[in-house]
Amino acid sequence: MRKIQIINGPNLNLLGVREPGIYGKNSFESYLPTLKALFPDVQIDYFQSNVEGELIDKMQQVGFDYAGIVLNAGAYTHTSIALLDCIRSLRCPTVEVHISNVHQREEYRHHSMISAGCLGVICGFGLQSYELAIRGILAHQSDKA
Amino acid sequence: MRKIQIINGPNLNLLGVREPGIYGKNSFESYLPTLKALFPDVQIDYFQSNVEGELIDKMQQVGFDYAGIVLNAGAYTHTSIALLDCIRSLRCPTVEVHISNVHQREEYRHHSMISAGCLGVICGFGLQSYELAIRGILAHQSDKA
Amino acid sequence: MRKIQIINGPNLNLLGVREPGIYGKNSFESYLPTLKALFPDVQIDYFQSNVEGELIDKMQQVGFDYAGIVLNAGAYTHTSIALLDCIRSLRCPTVEVHISNVHQREEYRHHSMISAGCLGVICGFGLQSYELAIRGILAHQSDKA
Amino acid sequence: MRKIQIINGPNLNLLGVREPGIYGKNSFESYLPTLKALFPDVQIDYFQSNVEGELIDKMQQVGFDYAGIVLNAGAYTHTSIALLDCIRSLRCPTVEVHISNVHQREEYRHHSMISAGCLGVICGFGLQSYELAIRGILAHQSDKA
Amino acid sequence: MRKIQIINGPNLNLLGVREPGIYGKNSFESYLPTLKALFPDVQIDYFQSNVEGELIDKMQQVGFDYAGIVLNAGAYTHTSIALLDCIRSLRCPTVEVHISNVHQREEYRHHSMISAGCLGVICGFGLQSYELAIRGILAHQSDKA
Amino acid sequence: MRKIQIINGPNLNLLGVREPGIYGKNSFESYLPTLKALFPDVQIDYFQSNVEGELIDKMQQVGFDYAGIVLNAGAYTHTSIALLDCIRSLRCPTVEVHISNVHQREEYRHHSMISAGCLGVICGFGLQSYELAIRGILAHQSDKA
Amino acid sequence: MRKIQIINGPNLNLLGVREPGIYGKNSFESYLPTLKALFPDVQIDYFQSNVEGELIDKMQQVGFDYAGIVLNAGAYTHTSIALLDCIRSLRCPTVEVHISNVHQREEYRHHSMISAGCLGVICGFGLQSYELAIRGILAHQSDKA
Amino acid sequence: MRKIQIINGPNLNLLGVREPGIYGKNSFESYLPTLKALFPDVQIDYFQSNVEGELIDKMQQVGFDYAGIVLNAGAYTHTSIALLDCIRSLRCPTVEVHISNVHQREEYRHHSMISAGCLGVICGFGLQSYELAIRGILAHQSDKA
Amino acid sequence: MRKIQIINGPNLNLLGVREPGIYGKNSFESYLPTLKALFPDVQIDYFQSNVEGELIDKMQQVGFDYAGIVLNAGAYTHTSIALLDCIRSLRCPTVEVHISNVHQREEYRHHSMISAGCLGVICGFGLQSYELAIRGILAHQSDKA
Amino acid sequence: MRKIQIINGPNLNLLGVREPGIYGKNSFESYLPTLKALFPDVQIDYFQSNVEGELIDKMQQVGFDYAGIVLNAGAYTHTSIALLDCIRSLRCPTVEVHISNVHQREEYRHHSMISAGCLGVICGFGLQSYELAIRGILAHQSDKA
Amino acid sequence: MRKIQIINGPNLNLLGVREPGIYGKNSFESYLPTLKALFPDVQIDYFQSNVEGELIDKMQQVGFDYAGIVLNAGAYTHTSIALLDCIRSLRCPTVEVHISNVHQREEYRHHSMISAGCLGVICGFGLQSYELAIRGILAHQSDKA
Amino acid sequence: MRKIQIINGPNLNLLGVREPGIYGKNSFESYLPTLKALFPDVQIDYFQSNVEGELIDKMQQVGFDYAGIVLNAGAYTHTSIALLDCIRSLRCPTVEVHISNVHQREEYRHHSMISAGCLGVICGFGLQSYELAIRGILAHQSDKA
Repeated sequence: MRKIQIINGPNLNLLGVREPGIYGKNSFESYLPTLKALFPDVQIDYFQSNVEGELIDKMQQVGFDYAGIVLNAGAYTHTSIALLDCIRSLRCPTVEVHISNVHQREEYRHHSMISAGCLGVICGFGLQSYELAIRGILAHQSDKA
Repeated sequence: MRKIQIINGPNLNLLGVREPGIYGKNSFESYLPTLKALFPDVQIDYFQSNVEGELIDKMQQVGFDYAGIVLNAGAYTHTSIALLDCIRSLRCPTVEVHISNVHQREEYRHHSMISAGCLGVICGFGLQSYELAIRGILAHQSDKA
Repeated sequence: MRKIQIINGPNLNLLGVREPGIYGKNSFESYLPTLKALFPDVQIDYFQSNVEGELIDKMQQVGFDYAGIVLNAGAYTHTSIALLDCIRSLRCPTVEVHISNVHQREEYRHHSMISAGCLGVICGFGLQSYELAIRGILAHQSDKA
Repeated sequence: MRKIQIINGPNLNLLGVREPGIYGKNSFESYLPTLKALFPDVQIDYFQSNVEGELIDKMQQVGFDYAGIVLNAGAYTHTSIALLDCIRSLRCPTVEVHISNVHQREEYRHHSMISAGCLGVICGFGLQSYELAIRGILAHQSDKA
Repeated sequence: MRKIQIINGPNLNLLGVREPGIYGKNSFESYLPTLKALFPDVQIDYFQSNVEGELIDKMQQVGFDYAGIVLNAGAYTHTSIALLDCIRSLRCPTVEVHISNVHQREEYRHHSMISAGCLGVICGFGLQSYELAIRGILAHQSDKA
Repeated sequence: MRKIQIINGPNLNLLGVREPGIYGKNSFESYLPTLKALFPDVQIDYFQSNVEGELIDKMQQVGFDYAGIVLNAGAYTHTSIALLDCIRSLRCPTVEVHISNVHQREEYRHHSMISAGCLGVICGFGLQSYELAIRGILAHQSDKA
Repeated sequence: MRKIQIINGPNLNLLGVREPGIYGKNSFESYLPTLKALFPDVQIDYFQSNVEGELIDKMQQVGFDYAGIVLNAGAYTHTSIALLDCIRSLRCPTVEVHISNVHQREEYRHHSMISAGCLGVICGFGLQSYELAIRGILAHQSDKA
Repeated sequence: MRKIQIINGPNLNLLGVREPGIYGKNSFESYLPTLKALFPDVQIDYFQSNVEGELIDKMQQVGFDYAGIVLNAGAYTHTSIALLDCIRSLRCPTVEVHISNVHQREEYRHHSMISAGCLGVICGFGLQSYELAIRGILAHQSDKA
Repeated sequence: MRKIQIINGPNLNLLGVREPGIYGKNSFESYLPTLKALFPDVQIDYFQSNVEGELIDKMQQVGFDYAGIVLNAGAYTHTSIALLDCIRSLRCPTVEVHISNVHQREEYRHHSMISAGCLGVICGFGLQSYELAIRGILAHQSDKA
Repeated sequence: MRKIQIINGPNLNLLGVREPGIYGKNSFESYLPTLKALFPDVQIDYFQSNVEGELIDKMQQVGFDYAGIVLNAGAYTHTSIALLDCIRSLRCPTVEVHISNVHQREEYRHHSMISAGCLGVICGFGLQSYELAIRGILAHQSDKA
Repeated sequence: MRKIQIINGPNLNLLGVREPGIYGKNSFESYLPTLKALFPDVQIDYFQSNVEGELIDKMQQVGFDYAGIVLNAGAYTHTSIALLDCIRSLRCPTVEVHISNVHQREEYRHHSMISAGCLGVICGFGLQSYELAIRGILAHQSDKA
Repeated sequence: MRKIQIINGPNLNLLGVREPGIYGKNSFESYLPTLKALFPDVQIDYFQSNVEGELIDKMQQVGFDYAGIVLNAGAYTHTSIALLDCIRSLRCPTVEVHISNVHQREEYRHHSMISAGCLGVICGFGLQSYELAIRGILAHQSDKA
């Protein structure tokens, strides 16, 4: 069974609480079962941390035998060279996702430090961004197969 | 029947010919039937032009009664305020797509002038980016319904 | 009879439809008769295109025997060196107009690439900007006579 | 009777003396009667000072019951946040004018600090810029009436 | 009896009138008695001017025998090297205050030219910023004593 | 009893040891009792960590029922978008404090990434900055009450 | 017989009319026979358009079986990523030419967006720049043969 | 008898008091007799103000019949376009002087806004800078005679 | 016996796995015995973490009685003011090392935020960089002795 | 007999040795006879130095009676104001040449400090760039004759 | 007898020949006797070179026992850190001079790399700048004596 | 016997004389024997020049049969593209050294133009930097052997 790791960065544990006008009213945990139901053949694991280094720890742990990583690095997206280095060190592809369309927000959210290491980027589709990312990883795998 | 317009900008008519290392070996026309087959309930129209103003003409023409526009504005992505203005003037949502991961290429391809007007952005999944964009539009429509 | 050419650039054909909070609710065509009535001694011609090069074509066509050009270059205002070159090549003066006060909007609308070639600039007076521009051209002509 | 205040900033008292190639050979005082004659129904007051703070004093004094202010802030145009704050604090609209086309001059004259607070901007029409500005204010007033 | 001078810069005489959403509805004069009552052992003097140079004049006049200056330089905060030079020339400390949180406003209000010369900076607490500044000066004095 | 959380970021555990010319000779722990004595009606809690993500963890933990947070984010002040996001997600206000006047130090310490999310900013008053911040929070609360 | 395509961009149809101090007094059409006479063994075709996209159309049309393209992209030189993409997509080499020495003119004419895709660049030799470009293409072809 | 006007800008009235490590211990007034004694054939007038606009007033007053102006604009040197405009409007030459070598101080003191309008610049020679400036004006006058 | 602490930052635990073209094929652990053998009189301790704050924790722990620290901060090198502050707070010297020549890589790796606090910098010598750093620390100590 | 001086700057004496992928495998000396044979009526002199000042010495020596200079200033192209000053001081025209297309290389090679002083610029044609430059000089001379 | 060294940099040997509109019609050699006559008690030596390193050689040679150096570094003024280092290494003061007012010329001539190391700067007084510089050195020496 | 060339750039001949607080009190010549004694199996040659081009001459002369070059390019480090080109043209590796920690000094000393061409960089260890550089070269050679 193929395994995909979803990783959420800082403050995404507040989803549903934090700025609902931008991020919606649902927590990620309440969305997870819906998402898993869409991909019955895939084991979907979930991890969240506010600590940059713990995101790296997790990615290193799964990045050599999972099929792919869906990464919403939150605010670390825009500054973390360490995450970029990590992404590039792994064997599996990473897809960068954002719930909101970051390009409609503050200037410092328009640039992503990690995109250059990822397979692709998806933003602006609310929680559905995660679903599209998983589809992207699976299709990419089929192409290579 | 819902209608979605795909619009490709400059040099995308050379797909399959132009820099195949980056863009792959298939023309968009040869991919289109596969794409249409995935969405039997949707009328998918296709338009390509090298002229910035003709992209705008087409978007104005469909943007008030189509369900959405999938726009790969090619090189105009990075400089066209006119396309951004157009996107913001329409009633239907536009999704920005790119075949390659533009963030792995030259610096001047890292910034998109049009993202701020779009519903969302998808890049790096090859021709599959178009499929994911259509899924995004359809799901967005369901959310609002 | 003196002739003045009004030229509107990209997306201005959507006037009345597009972002009415910024641009008002009237189309330019519905305003034109009012404007013409103010200047019974002047032949006022009107042209709109979304294509940068067609704006240049039109300007080259009229710029050697009209009394002046009133140019609202829309989004091309901020990036088009080609329009600037064209303005400088003509015998008649061009006045740059904007319906909205562009300085109250996004940063990239604060700089005009074409102002340096124009006789003068008028912005922020809604559709009345066109009337003031025509008055400016006519007075300028009297000064030289 | 409606009242409009014209305010000229630093060095504009030298008009007619200072760089006549750019600013023309007439002093503003000699132009004022001509201007007043064009608007017999309007009381037009004139004030000039080289002191930034005195321009603010005058604007605060008239800005709550005049119909509008025509402001040529001269060199302070490009640097004065204090003038911008003042313009935004008043009840009546301010129109920014310049005699010369500032965009044809040194780079540091291309940006105006105060435009964002004004109703509109007019530049490049010589002394006629003041006339156009008054027309702009009067028409704006009618629109709101 | 220790003396502290409060100095308000341009447009702060409009407090209560100007943009009440940002600055509140009270004039500074109406707040002054409340403030004085909090510090019965201190002589608190107040001065306001729209003229940069008059702010300097006042600071030079008090800065050699007052216990400290509370300076809200308004818009001059962001551009005035002359105020910075003045602050550094005095014997008594200056505390920079702002009523609003300037970091939530336009980019050009994020940088202060004068902070580097001041004892400290306080912003965002409404009129209470002045009270905190006086407390800061008094405590600083005790430390040195 | 109202509760206020003080949070100190990286290297502030070295206070009294680290660069005493800038930060003074007392550790924060030795100062804490003095501070608590000033506010007998307030429960003042203290937390320090060198890990950015742990600062966020603590803020999320207290930010929904404490009266306010006094945050000295140390070096993370200048770079952490994650802290800014956190501050904006909370229900209680955060006040940014600094012991030294950061504007008198290196250029990269002049800009704060977090100020825009805070109620206010206080810097330069040594350890007294914390006291002033608590006063600011309490007064702000009274205003709203 | 080898074929070389000359392509002139915006406003170059005004050659001989436009700013003769910079561009000389001859139209390109009157120069063309002289140029053709120099290369009797080469078929030299000529195309001009003010529309960026039409320049691309023409280049795509000839770029797979001509020996080379001599491109004076006029003002689009400095901004067009679309032209650069096109140049890189073709099989034949493109040489960038300019009539004037663009480095003696405005700052925004000093940078070329398209040079990086071209075989070489020639500027400043008046109409002779075209002749030198053709020589460059022919010699390049011999080298490879 | 030739007349030369010395004008000192903001905070230079504190000379001898302000930062004596940089500016020395003598007031300008105590230096003036020594300076006058060096040029018995010249009438040397002195003016100081902290108000930018009053510096302009004075320059306009003397600039049409004095032999020259020696201007130490202090902090306004680095920001005042209004002073530059004034200098360029006058008939007599202005020499810019500084007591300290401004290039050894803060970055924002390295650029002068007014140098471009002056005959020449002299800095770093302490109060002797004024003497050298007067010599420069007198020699310049002889050259033209 | 003198003690030296080696500290490796994010992703350096992947040495030998991560981008071997840049970093070589050996893990740091396999290199460590060779390194220790070179300095029999020195106790060499080793620590690695992906968490910025844990690097600081470790440095604070050893920095007051070790002879020196050899720090390869990995990606945090380019952004961490917190590490710089930490380095400056310690009693022992820190030497910055890099395995690769960072100046041959991406632009954002050319600037080090921490160099200014270190005794010296060594980069580009592969794992030997660590050996040279230890030699540097030991020699520095002898100089002072 | 007309004389043309070819001047090669730093490291061009290594031609054929240095980075043959970019510069080719021939030394300039071995190419020179071929070049001379193309222009039997012209005396072609050759000079190379690694010293910026010696390039200037040579240019000053020939620049008042030669027909022109072909200058490949190598790395000094991008930084030398002294060479620009020299070019502008001479009576004969200078043509700037480069063997490679500098615009395809590092960013700092995209800007030339000397182009603004030259008659024209030629780059990217390998050693043939020199031939085209000589043709350019000769034709320019005919034009003036 | 006190000794002063005058050093002229690149292209200043062309004085009288080069751009006489800017630099005048006299060579420096023809001016030297006049200058020497003004200072009969001073030995004035003169050196010119186009080679940056030879300027340094000469300065090192005289800089430990001459009374001062008058340096017109020409174009090296704006780029040479090596000259700055040299000036700071010497025992005697250096005065920077320029014949023209460099601030009225191209932007890249507005910044001097060497000013920060010099005693003072004098520019814009034609050849008299050298005289004023010598006076400045002699007075400086008296002050210290 | 392996040969290593040490090359010192501008002003390093003043070592021991120039700013001893930064560079120490010993001349390089007095240090050389100590250095040579450390490497009895290596022939160590030494060269110093203030002329950029002569540094290049020397490097070209030794760079094809020496084992390596230790280069302290002094001030040319920060600006010389010519030195970078030279380093890249040679067969042997170059190590960049600095006596002081350049990152603790002026901003313009933080960037090295030549690092990208070097094997590695060593700075901040005083004269010992040279010893470490030689060790680096020798070890690098062993690795390749």
